[in-house]
Amino acid sequence: MSEAQESGPAVSGRRPKRDALVAAAFELFTTHGFEQTTVDDIVRLAGVGRSSFFRYFPSKEDVVFPDHEGCLAEMTAFLQEGSSEEDPVIKVCDAARLVMRMYADNPAFAVQRYRLTKSVPGLRHHELSVVWRYERTLADYLRRRFAHRPDGTLRADVIAASVVAAHNNALRAWLRSGGQEHPAAHMDEALEFVRRSWGPEGQTTGPDEEETDDVVVLIAKRKAPMWRVVREIESTLDDR
Amino acid sequence: MSEAQESGPAVSGRRPKRDALVAAAFELFTTHGFEQTTVDDIVRLAGVGRSSFFRYFPSKEDVVFPDHEGCLAEMTAFLQEGSSEEDPVIKVCDAARLVMRMYADNPAFAVQRYRLTKSVPGLRHHELSVVWRYERTLADYLRRRFAHRPDGTLRADVIAASVVAAHNNALRAWLRSGGQEHPAAHMDEALEFVRRSWGPEGQTTGPDEEETDDVVVLIAKRKAPMWRVVREIESTLDDR
Repeated sequence: MSEAQESGPAVSGRRPKRDALVAAAFELFTTHGFEQTTVDDIVRLAGVGRSSFFRYFPSKEDVVFPDHEGCLAEMTAFLQEGSSEEDPVIKVCDAARLVMRMYADNPAFAVQRYRLTKSVPGLRHHELSVVWRYERTLADYLRRRFAHRPDGTLRADVIAASVVAAHNNALRAWLRSGGQEHPAAHMDEALEFVRRSWGPEGQTTGPDEEETDDVVVLIAKRKAPMWRVVREIESTLDDR
Repeated sequence: MSEAQESGPAVSGRRPKRDALVAAAFELFTTHGFEQTTVDDIVRLAGVGRSSFFRYFPSKEDVVFPDHEGCLAEMTAFLQEGSSEEDPVIKVCDAARLVMRMYADNPAFAVQRYRLTKSVPGLRHHELSVVWRYERTLADYLRRRFAHRPDGTLRADVIAASVVAAHNNALRAWLRSGGQEHPAAHMDEALEFVRRSWGPEGQTTGPDEEETDDVVVLIAKRKAPMWRVVREIESTLDDR
């Protein structure tokens, strides 16, 4: 079980029984298949009692995602400690980066799990429920921040979904690279895409920021659609 | 089983065995509970053979969502029959309306299922996988439409997630009203929110559309963030 043990999160040392169960499970899942492996097989290889398994993991599926509970707790704490001065869209983008960081902390394990999850429908479904909990955590935070807006819950739900979709798009690109690329390579671009789309709220320009006297003058037909106006502004600004 | 039969999708008449199974399942789920009901209980009440159940439904969970397969097929066909002239964002918003329409076709059944699904974690997880398939269908369409863009897959994934989140926000509002409100009450606003955020692409103004000579002149500091520029334009246009 050397490879799973070396590359897995099994060697944190703080919870040796739990770590041994994760390492044994991955050893068995990757060699014999997920469906073919029983909880009894896992506890036998890990050398721990059956009751220990269910103390740490509600089901066989959960052992595949051993770090998500901790990451969800970290995300919740990160969002709670924020102030009302912080831009809410930037805040949820930064919260999403915590998930990427968890994956990037252990690339070999993350890639191994990605390949396993792709091939087992039951695990894909389980992963959806994990992703859903992240999305709800972000949406709940945004709903509080947007509570004063008539479209607050709608805006919160849509932005949370956007952030999760962008994060997962970048995460999958990193996983497909075998965890070889820099974790930020796609993530910065993806989250910046979301941030640009929704725009900061409540952010103010710092007083020390240098201002130039340049101005843009735009003349648009009344009927011109907004996207065309925006595109025109962007290309004008890019040219300067 | 009168109520489930009258309100359920059981009376389409085209597939009487399947319809009887759905009606029997809902009768049992709502009176005895989802976990406490077995497939044997369902087939006994429906008066059909056990093998019939599994011919129509892969699992006990699937009988709760009997119309989604058909709706997914309808959505796929709707997206395939589109032309490249159509705005992709409007197209996926219209595709999402097909799901709302399926719910609105049978409000009593939809509300009954909503209450059931909320109270059974296994069904919530199953529903997530259904929602995921809609989201992938929309994203795959958008990826084809945005194939020429460097950020095509990212843009496609994020917009698909936005549309699904907006749709579900409006659908839940309708379900919480007990299916009493007009189905479009929240849906139009929610999808318009997404459409405005992402802007139409490839849409052209019709030649017959009347143009006015009004113009907007905007002067912005070079350092002004784009969201502030857009907000300024929007409020200026709203005032006219």
